[in-house]
Amino acid sequence: MYPSSIKNVIDCFKDLPGIGEKTAERLAFSLINFNKDKLTSFSDAIVDIRDKITTCAICGNITDDNVCSICRDKDRSDNIVFVVEKAKDIALFEKINVYNGKYHVLGKLISPLDGVGPEDINLDSLVDRIKKGTIKEIILTLKPSIEGETTMQYIKKIVEPYGIRVTRIATGIPVGTDIEYIDPMTLEFALEGRKDI
Amino acid sequence: MYPSSIKNVIDCFKDLPGIGEKTAERLAFSLINFNKDKLTSFSDAIVDIRDKITTCAICGNITDDNVCSICRDKDRSDNIVFVVEKAKDIALFEKINVYNGKYHVLGKLISPLDGVGPEDINLDSLVDRIKKGTIKEIILTLKPSIEGETTMQYIKKIVEPYGIRVTRIATGIPVGTDIEYIDPMTLEFALEGRKDI
Repeated sequence: MYPSSIKNVIDCFKDLPGIGEKTAERLAFSLINFNKDKLTSFSDAIVDIRDKITTCAICGNITDDNVCSICRDKDRSDNIVFVVEKAKDIALFEKINVYNGKYHVLGKLISPLDGVGPEDINLDSLVDRIKKGTIKEIILTLKPSIEGETTMQYIKKIVEPYGIRVTRIATGIPVGTDIEYIDPMTLEFALEGRKDI
Repeated sequence: MYPSSIKNVIDCFKDLPGIGEKTAERLAFSLINFNKDKLTSFSDAIVDIRDKITTCAICGNITDDNVCSICRDKDRSDNIVFVVEKAKDIALFEKINVYNGKYHVLGKLISPLDGVGPEDINLDSLVDRIKKGTIKEIILTLKPSIEGETTMQYIKKIVEPYGIRVTRIATGIPVGTDIEYIDPMTLEFALEGRKDI
């Protein structure tokens, strides 16, 4: 019923996460009102993702160079490394603007149920970085889930022999959230992690 | 902070309706996991929208030909025309699969406040179609809003001299909606449009 060029772009939008049939149609039709230059930029941007994006040889972050801009940055400390699950997580920490160290992207979390073992996550290159001797602390910034906990325990075991500090970010009540909406396990972690005031 | 190819695609997604910064980032990152063929199709589909999509010379529907597939269809009746606001509205009626006539796309509704006058909507070509003499009824399927009502009244005035029937779809309570959530104006229309059972 739709012209094939509309149908194709609807199908592409539908492949994106959280976009169903109706939203895909709405987005496709909105493109019709874009001017030609904007459509060219959009198409070119996707081609660039196809041709230029790769993962950083050092930390696993996404980059359009061999080494990402964070690893290249001489002003950032090599003493601390945030270990994150996804490249996208880096943006979250960069936005709060309090951190001047490096990152390491695992890509996945260990999840035996999904067939993801320790060998499937980007860990060997973390050990290589540790062996170079500049890293003094590793901060695990993984989500507090079964997979997150498993991965954190595994990394602790692997990293322990090198005698560096391994910490994890706090699990607790998010700012502005009413306690009645918090699940029992988070409450337990929050109690355990209580601090003197 | 992001590689420029990611930044560009985030900016493109942000231009789409209902897509904010966070969603744009999520969508852009999801593209990284697409395979190269899929990214090529996506980029090509957008180029096709740029190069092929035009409006039907007869009804104003979007098409990648001079005349749209509905206007070309010899099996569809020329006696009835649904007058819709947007090309996308056609899809709604085609999906319920009860209609075998033609369409006419106005593009916009008359809206003096937004500076849209009768001369800005695709009406001359509707009159041209009527003059050919095959149209027996025009069904106005516009939304019941100030702009919709104004446009319907205007079209009625223009079409009246040709002696064809002009109807409008019913305004009333949507199926499955509780009456308590219905605004007073809709209730009034629904009462006015009551039918014997």
